[in-house]
Amino acid sequence: MTVNIHKSRLAAIRTLMKRKRVDALIVPSSDPHLGEYVPDHWRVIRWLTGFTGSAANVVITKSFAGLWTDSRYFIQAEDQLKGSGFTLVRLKVPHTPEFIGWLGENITEGGKVAVDGRLISAVQLRMLMGAVAPHNAKVSLTADLISPLWGERPPLPDSPAYELPAEFCGESRSDKINRVREGMTANRADYQLLTAADDVMWLLNIRGNDIRYSPLLLSFALVSIQQVLLFADEEKIPGSLRSSLDKDGVVLLPYDSITSVLSHLDDGSAIMLSPSTTSAALARAVPRRVRIIEDVTVATRLKAVKNSTELNNIRQVMVRDGVALTRFFHWLEESVGRNRVTELSASEMIESLRREQEGCMGPSFSTIAAYNEHAALPHYVPDDDTDAVLENTGIFLLDSGGQYYGGTTDITRTVALGRPGENTRRDFTLALKGTISLAMARFPYGTRGYQLDVLARKALWENGMNYGHGTGHGVGCFLNVHEGPQAIGTSAAGDLKTVLEPGMVLSDEPAFYRQGEYGFRTENLLVCTDDRETDYGRFLKFETVTLCYIDSTLTEVSLLDEGELTWLNEYHENVYKSLAHFLEPGIRVWLRKKTAPLVR
Amino acid sequence: MTVNIHKSRLAAIRTLMKRKRVDALIVPSSDPHLGEYVPDHWRVIRWLTGFTGSAANVVITKSFAGLWTDSRYFIQAEDQLKGSGFTLVRLKVPHTPEFIGWLGENITEGGKVAVDGRLISAVQLRMLMGAVAPHNAKVSLTADLISPLWGERPPLPDSPAYELPAEFCGESRSDKINRVREGMTANRADYQLLTAADDVMWLLNIRGNDIRYSPLLLSFALVSIQQVLLFADEEKIPGSLRSSLDKDGVVLLPYDSITSVLSHLDDGSAIMLSPSTTSAALARAVPRRVRIIEDVTVATRLKAVKNSTELNNIRQVMVRDGVALTRFFHWLEESVGRNRVTELSASEMIESLRREQEGCMGPSFSTIAAYNEHAALPHYVPDDDTDAVLENTGIFLLDSGGQYYGGTTDITRTVALGRPGENTRRDFTLALKGTISLAMARFPYGTRGYQLDVLARKALWENGMNYGHGTGHGVGCFLNVHEGPQAIGTSAAGDLKTVLEPGMVLSDEPAFYRQGEYGFRTENLLVCTDDRETDYGRFLKFETVTLCYIDSTLTEVSLLDEGELTWLNEYHENVYKSLAHFLEPGIRVWLRKKTAPLVR
Repeated sequence: MTVNIHKSRLAAIRTLMKRKRVDALIVPSSDPHLGEYVPDHWRVIRWLTGFTGSAANVVITKSFAGLWTDSRYFIQAEDQLKGSGFTLVRLKVPHTPEFIGWLGENITEGGKVAVDGRLISAVQLRMLMGAVAPHNAKVSLTADLISPLWGERPPLPDSPAYELPAEFCGESRSDKINRVREGMTANRADYQLLTAADDVMWLLNIRGNDIRYSPLLLSFALVSIQQVLLFADEEKIPGSLRSSLDKDGVVLLPYDSITSVLSHLDDGSAIMLSPSTTSAALARAVPRRVRIIEDVTVATRLKAVKNSTELNNIRQVMVRDGVALTRFFHWLEESVGRNRVTELSASEMIESLRREQEGCMGPSFSTIAAYNEHAALPHYVPDDDTDAVLENTGIFLLDSGGQYYGGTTDITRTVALGRPGENTRRDFTLALKGTISLAMARFPYGTRGYQLDVLARKALWENGMNYGHGTGHGVGCFLNVHEGPQAIGTSAAGDLKTVLEPGMVLSDEPAFYRQGEYGFRTENLLVCTDDRETDYGRFLKFETVTLCYIDSTLTEVSLLDEGELTWLNEYHENVYKSLAHFLEPGIRVWLRKKTAPLVR
Repeated sequence: MTVNIHKSRLAAIRTLMKRKRVDALIVPSSDPHLGEYVPDHWRVIRWLTGFTGSAANVVITKSFAGLWTDSRYFIQAEDQLKGSGFTLVRLKVPHTPEFIGWLGENITEGGKVAVDGRLISAVQLRMLMGAVAPHNAKVSLTADLISPLWGERPPLPDSPAYELPAEFCGESRSDKINRVREGMTANRADYQLLTAADDVMWLLNIRGNDIRYSPLLLSFALVSIQQVLLFADEEKIPGSLRSSLDKDGVVLLPYDSITSVLSHLDDGSAIMLSPSTTSAALARAVPRRVRIIEDVTVATRLKAVKNSTELNNIRQVMVRDGVALTRFFHWLEESVGRNRVTELSASEMIESLRREQEGCMGPSFSTIAAYNEHAALPHYVPDDDTDAVLENTGIFLLDSGGQYYGGTTDITRTVALGRPGENTRRDFTLALKGTISLAMARFPYGTRGYQLDVLARKALWENGMNYGHGTGHGVGCFLNVHEGPQAIGTSAAGDLKTVLEPGMVLSDEPAFYRQGEYGFRTENLLVCTDDRETDYGRFLKFETVTLCYIDSTLTEVSLLDEGELTWLNEYHENVYKSLAHFLEPGIRVWLRKKTAPLVR
């Protein structure tokens, strides 16, 4: 009889908890920057439970050990947690800290809850304390129960950072710092704390290699009116970058010294920080007599609006990305039914075709390559156990993206591998109408993302259909594929100050999923631009920058209205004209057919 | 030389301020219930400044006396404040307390701000204190500087309250009280404070005559698990009503005793109250050891969802209202160009035609009867100075409503008095498309009002047009014409918990205004109803209950899509069928023409 290794780790943790008088231990899946992807050093949950999904929270008490995760991981978690002693708790609403509610009901009267204060946001800590307060329970942020037990823990990443050339940034470091300072002054803040690594990258025009999928150096920054402090592993900053930073008044300090620097801020000063991306440990380090201004960071707001250099680069990147995608779908059509193509081999193919393109550094997130019923799972990622062989019938969905020096891409296309039936075409087209309708939107300056969401869902809603995720997210420029503060979705719970601004990049990804059968999603990236000025104000619109044909065999033309059909034909003409020059003759002819105008 | 009476009142106030060491006095236009309409006793601003508009805030300091009001009153205020010593301050955003920002910048260091704590909400007090805190200024809620100076102040209204029969309420008082208690229990509250008079009316199935336009008795209520306390002038409660209340365990207490009762709540108990409709004085009266749960009241949430008795009554009231409106527009068409018709005489006519209808108690708000450029002012109300004579050309807009025992109506129609030109028809139709598009919406349960707003604006936005007000508000049932918590608009700043529920009544009033020329608004009331249940959840839709033809001569059929045209023709068929039976033969024939199907 073999002992499950995770079961013995759980037992060891419980022994330690008992010794330290901890009644409930919380283990989040984050790192101290609270971003989407974390380095192996911080994949504590994988080590502890065996669960390999990217987002979860673990809570351990004397009598219960639970792992909270969202629907995309239900099957996988059920499987991976077998025999580990951990129970899967299914999240009702994705990305919400439902474990806090559980603790509010299950914590021992007068008990102690422990969590590594670096791995939980200031906002979550506040919720946690509110939930356990009626039970007179205390929250300890200092007990590290993992390090003593995790013998061969992977070290923190050590690859060097580098400067991103001006041709990609479009704005100097010192100009960016000045604009952040203007924002601080407008908010009467003496300091701006940056805890999200992409904020730091954007501000200082640097990039790193610490994280998969995002070119980030794990670092913090503290901007004051006089100087900028960069907290990073000194060994990862090459001499040339160091002197360049020095020239702009950026002072390099050890990564861990951030806590100490925060704890010595002047009494009576004011610091801006984002409570959802700042850890409880850092927020607590700020002395009581320093006023904390909670808000999305000035850097996040400025970063969201791309400058003209970035936008021009993004448009060029889209051509390269479109070439890779066109070659991929041509290859797919040629290969399926002839050679063995699986979800995993298709994922490898799109990645290698992208890497052939100039300036491509790899994928911007895990490729979703999903055949038939797998496509009905919005976040499905194939693995050796689930990998399906693609055949000459059915539906194939590919949601993938690349990191290029000039920009980050994120695109979804769904194609029919055989002749789709009438219902299939109807389902596809009702979702496609959403993608087109949002792309065609024209709206006054001041409009927020939530106001436009219904445009993407109207055709589905009218037919009693819907999709259970957001419609659009912000996208970074050679940074995170998911970037704030703007978003398009049903919820207005986010940052109500954020309006759509010219220069913002957003995804446009309405979808429709039929459980056990198939899923459809057509996703393009949009750039928000000026439309016109009238007596009724300044109006904005979107430019669709993603360049890849949309499968005509899935499109039921009779369901498109006049404007939608015109949009689709013009889009296809643009795709062909933009990509044709870079394609091999055979593929060019093929793309001409794929982008031929549709008629009623 | 005559001395302006308001100037001398201002001088007297300043003398009193000096004596009481008040550096800034705030005078709001509200009463202790913070509702939309107030009795004459509380029209302090009219007495003080001469301004007769319904919404304003006055701030007086040693060197400045300002009156903040919104754009609908700019011209009127400019005129009425002449020589009064008060300066008009134009609100940038309607219904926002911009005077608080002004005080934040202009209050004397260490100064004292005074405001009658009964007339400012707990929310506004919090904002005010935040704004003046950096200047170490204090806020006093107790100084009443008005009563000593206002010699012939109108007394509080004294007309009696009455019980609304079961046939209009559809739910007994005791059942309502039980449902409020269930909501309190769910929120772990021991008390529910009701400060908005319409909440009290709904809960106790009573009505009053204290306020113009709304059948309200000025009163507060405090619901506990054991009993209900009603705070009202005892003389206004007839014996029969008193014993009926008594039977249901409702205890009558003097109106003013509310403060004292609140200040004696048990330590450790919890009270729910709405901070935007509860005065600072009442919120402050609650002892520190009582936990305050701030939320929209349970009564407001329950009241918003009409029961089937109410909905049936509303549908019947709509027939009567539609008959009055049809007679009005027939009379208008017959009279204009023949007899002298003015905005004011038209207002009187619609009011008297409504009063002829069974159960009509009068108008539900001041009638907006606006000719040509007056119609470009969304809230224009004619008076002797502005009253325009209607001629056989141009545009006439009528926004009016009635209070009936069975329900409250609110409808806007715009008609052409001559032959409208092409641009005029285009403007009207682009706004009408919004009214129709919202009426046709189908959406999943859980949808909030802000999500649907773009449906009402899309056609306008696509043409660089817009309107500067909300799209829809809740409507009471023989209660306030503006009722919360639901609304449809661009802003999600309101109550994010509120989703659209079957049984809610909302207005649907997209519009378009061309300054100096004309304005268009087509407003119907919608009832939210169930649509269907699918694999993707429960879906809802709207039923348009308002019954009045829409002017075909203004409708440019080529701008309507297939679905909109079908809706319009079906609507007209329904209007005719519902009203014809009640109309005189001549008017019936006339309405048949007005509701004839449109074709492309």
